[in-house]
Amino acid sequence: MKIIKSIRQMQKWADGQRRRGKSIGFVPTMGALHDGHGSLMRAAARRCDSVVVSIFVNPTQFGPNEDYARYPRDAENDAALCRREKMDVLFMPTAEAVYPEGHDTKIRVGRIGEVLEGAVRPGHFSGVATVVAILFEIVRPDVAFFGQKDYQQTVVVNRMTRDLNFPVKIVVSPTVREKDGLAMSSRNRFLSAEERKTAGVLFKALQKGKERIGQGERDAAAVRDAMTLLILEEPAARIEYAVVANLETLEEVSEIKERVVLLLAVRIGRTRLIDNLPVRP
Amino acid sequence: MKIIKSIRQMQKWADGQRRRGKSIGFVPTMGALHDGHGSLMRAAARRCDSVVVSIFVNPTQFGPNEDYARYPRDAENDAALCRREKMDVLFMPTAEAVYPEGHDTKIRVGRIGEVLEGAVRPGHFSGVATVVAILFEIVRPDVAFFGQKDYQQTVVVNRMTRDLNFPVKIVVSPTVREKDGLAMSSRNRFLSAEERKTAGVLFKALQKGKERIGQGERDAAAVRDAMTLLILEEPAARIEYAVVANLETLEEVSEIKERVVLLLAVRIGRTRLIDNLPVRP
Repeated sequence: MKIIKSIRQMQKWADGQRRRGKSIGFVPTMGALHDGHGSLMRAAARRCDSVVVSIFVNPTQFGPNEDYARYPRDAENDAALCRREKMDVLFMPTAEAVYPEGHDTKIRVGRIGEVLEGAVRPGHFSGVATVVAILFEIVRPDVAFFGQKDYQQTVVVNRMTRDLNFPVKIVVSPTVREKDGLAMSSRNRFLSAEERKTAGVLFKALQKGKERIGQGERDAAAVRDAMTLLILEEPAARIEYAVVANLETLEEVSEIKERVVLLLAVRIGRTRLIDNLPVRP
Repeated sequence: MKIIKSIRQMQKWADGQRRRGKSIGFVPTMGALHDGHGSLMRAAARRCDSVVVSIFVNPTQFGPNEDYARYPRDAENDAALCRREKMDVLFMPTAEAVYPEGHDTKIRVGRIGEVLEGAVRPGHFSGVATVVAILFEIVRPDVAFFGQKDYQQTVVVNRMTRDLNFPVKIVVSPTVREKDGLAMSSRNRFLSAEERKTAGVLFKALQKGKERIGQGERDAAAVRDAMTLLILEEPAARIEYAVVANLETLEEVSEIKERVVLLLAVRIGRTRLIDNLPVRP
């Protein structure tokens, strides 16, 4: 596996692949890799001739009071995991290379970037969209792989990719979960043993919501309340949002007529977790 | 010459060129072509194996009270000029194809997109940056050609291209002028015969500014006043701005220590004209 830090070198390597007619799969990450990332890598390896994994903790998608400084960084383990998954390139640019002095261009995805995570974390999706575009331009992949755990992110990336005509196919892979249903996330390592037990409540709440819809409930408020009540039973959990939303617009629905997505953001102690579940009525 | 209207077909054609190892030059325009565009086409033909000219009057770069509806459109003459210049492709997408329903992604270039033209025309450069990015993604040219007449636009496009890592080389070609110095522009056809005579004053003012700097003037206010006074002699002319600015940041300078650019926006009757001149002290 090649470890590349320079943008120029990354472009050169990708150009070479293209000249040889090889397709490029791309898995952009912020590192602190876990098996959720592993599953994206395996999906990419199955589908593409070569795979590039990027690790870049993108400062512009963190708010001023968020966890950029303490976001987990674990280059050694990350490289080992990529090697095990037989990745071709691990691309690790520096923030100074991605945002050189004078950098002043931002991509904004409208409405869908402003609700839910976008409302709680202003500027977050502009940061995400901009860095994804920059990485797409450097790697110019044929296919890029994102985890469904960050559902709104996949909607934003899809919207941007279509709107700007990036010739990149976006593949969204199912969320990988721990035994108790907790969605794998780099931030899970912030949880204490006690909090870790509590964290299972997100998936339980989503399951409860799905169950209610399965039983014929069509009132979104009732489904939302069922999820909320279950989470409220955990004193260490603080709900940021629990909604039933349209799959594409992410607008909250009042009546469940077609497929919807249940979306949760919950704080467990100091750690903020998100999860989601698409449900067909 | 191929005339292509579909985005998909344009991508396919460009992919084919790349596969054959041919470089692609790109001249994005809003049509109503004149010899300023002609010189960009010739520069592109000299430098690249194949050249694509696009004609797209981009609605998002016009303000609500601007001249989008009456912007000159002249497809037949435009196609004839492109044929004469032996262009390979004339790409004419529709607004519905470039901005399909639900389109909601914008690129914003910060500070340099907010001064001068950006201050008088809010949103203008966000519209320009977004459409240029979209066209770049469709055509994926090796080299793109822009006229220096729209100086600030070239600064914005350069900034965006660098910031987003577009692997496109930007070439800026010198302004092509009429005999009296008037910069060629599609909007010149709006001028009455009388206004046309008056319009020569923009270049005269720029020349006057350059002359003053050549004589040793280092006070930018004095240079600006010399340009302004000359324009004020024309009762039909109304100055929107006349400035001496830094070449890269476009910030107004007070003392002329290095290369600067003189920038003018002047209304002649209902028609708004811009022009500029880089000057070395």
